[in-house]
Amino acid sequence: MKETLNLVASSKSFGGWQQRYSHHALSVGCEMTFSIYLPPAAEQSPVPVLYWLSGLTCTDENFVQKAGAQRVAAALGIAIVTPDTSPRGEQVPGDPEGAWDFGLGAGFYVDATEEPWNRNYRMHDYVVNELPGLIEAHFPVTKNRAISGHSMGGHGALVCALRNPGRYRSVSAFSPITHPGDCPWGRKAFTHYLGTDETLWRAWDACELIATARERLLLLVDQGQDDNFLVEQLKPEALEAACTEAGYPLTLRRQPGYDHSYYFIASFIEDHLRHHAAALLAD
Amino acid sequence: MKETLNLVASSKSFGGWQQRYSHHALSVGCEMTFSIYLPPAAEQSPVPVLYWLSGLTCTDENFVQKAGAQRVAAALGIAIVTPDTSPRGEQVPGDPEGAWDFGLGAGFYVDATEEPWNRNYRMHDYVVNELPGLIEAHFPVTKNRAISGHSMGGHGALVCALRNPGRYRSVSAFSPITHPGDCPWGRKAFTHYLGTDETLWRAWDACELIATARERLLLLVDQGQDDNFLVEQLKPEALEAACTEAGYPLTLRRQPGYDHSYYFIASFIEDHLRHHAAALLAD
Repeated sequence: MKETLNLVASSKSFGGWQQRYSHHALSVGCEMTFSIYLPPAAEQSPVPVLYWLSGLTCTDENFVQKAGAQRVAAALGIAIVTPDTSPRGEQVPGDPEGAWDFGLGAGFYVDATEEPWNRNYRMHDYVVNELPGLIEAHFPVTKNRAISGHSMGGHGALVCALRNPGRYRSVSAFSPITHPGDCPWGRKAFTHYLGTDETLWRAWDACELIATARERLLLLVDQGQDDNFLVEQLKPEALEAACTEAGYPLTLRRQPGYDHSYYFIASFIEDHLRHHAAALLAD
Repeated sequence: MKETLNLVASSKSFGGWQQRYSHHALSVGCEMTFSIYLPPAAEQSPVPVLYWLSGLTCTDENFVQKAGAQRVAAALGIAIVTPDTSPRGEQVPGDPEGAWDFGLGAGFYVDATEEPWNRNYRMHDYVVNELPGLIEAHFPVTKNRAISGHSMGGHGALVCALRNPGRYRSVSAFSPITHPGDCPWGRKAFTHYLGTDETLWRAWDACELIATARERLLLLVDQGQDDNFLVEQLKPEALEAACTEAGYPLTLRRQPGYDHSYYFIASFIEDHLRHHAAALLAD
């Protein structure tokens, strides 16, 4: 039986439809909201899907409203699904100190093992399993999937692809947290969600996963050079070193003058969509 | 002496710069914030400027974040200036009943004559005179100006162009309030700002101004057919009738399925920018 989807909003956009749905998500034990862009081509035949994972403090709407991706998705014939960045709701615990870099809006796309987070913070399972199952049951889409994201969501995209060979045809990221085990945002989140045994963090850290990756998807990463979080949190040089060491095919573009905002993402989202289309639309 | 501009934010966008400034505005007697997009071409030589007027409840940021205009403005070499939609601040009176369709965020781009609105609500003077003076003194722009807007801002764009022949090279609008003297939003605003003598409203109503327009700028208007405000507030048929009667060159495009949102604007903003570029970049 199909799970129930509740249509929250629907607007025509570049000949297709930008829609928002809510549903009860089993994996995270709460009501979740996601957005989907369906290109005009979806009215004729099933289209492939790009999953976009947003960064800290975001919901499903930031990318939808600010990235300007619908134009290119319409032209290429690709659907885009944007989940929320954490479980939500009164029963979902947030950061004990009320900070924005952990808890609500900051699920880090892991499956938490520690109390009390392990009851709801299972965003990896949600993004990789439950949500695609739902999308593929309810919408005119194929099983050709791609994944991308920004900042915390860039980390999420890399980890989802690296942990699940065969599940995605392509991967990319903007300004990803490349090495969460070695930056303040990641260490705070992983300590809470995964506990203090750092050896267990490796299974959720792109720089560690690259070393043993069985699948080699062409990886496109854009990083702004004037990003305030570049040095302390994002560390593209760590990803670059890991890929070089492992012979993993990385295209890392350092973009002079660009910051961490959606103005940066909007400037280069077309390149990423075309990167994904090349894999999604190949026979 | 140049007025002082305070840089609030600056992000690189499509090779140019999306910036936000605040300044003390004499015309409206308060601190105002505006945004400007400077395309890469502005680093070489002055570029023309499109002024964008937003709708009810908006600030300078809605268009900037949601319309996806920077890509095309960068390609065409056009700056875009987006003012706020009303005066703001503790000393600026708002709607007596706290509604969103009058007062703060709802200046209607008129010069109010009635107390207490006439002290600050002089958005026409601000948009037509003070702001362009400031822009042309501080930024690498030419005096080639165009004007466009959405909903209340579509009304504003039409009225600014029609009242000031010679000031703009081109005009367009999305979902404009075409005939404020004959719709609830407009009648409420004009009664407060301009008083109860409706003959005085004609000088601020596009459908009235079209009849006596001395200048004939090609007018492009897009209107979504599934816009919730279409019948009661927007009335494109009134503008169409006025233009037909006066022989004014209107291209009115009724777009099936589109609503009143920025998803609609984003879908057709490129057409509008190219419409303006044809006039702005002509010798």
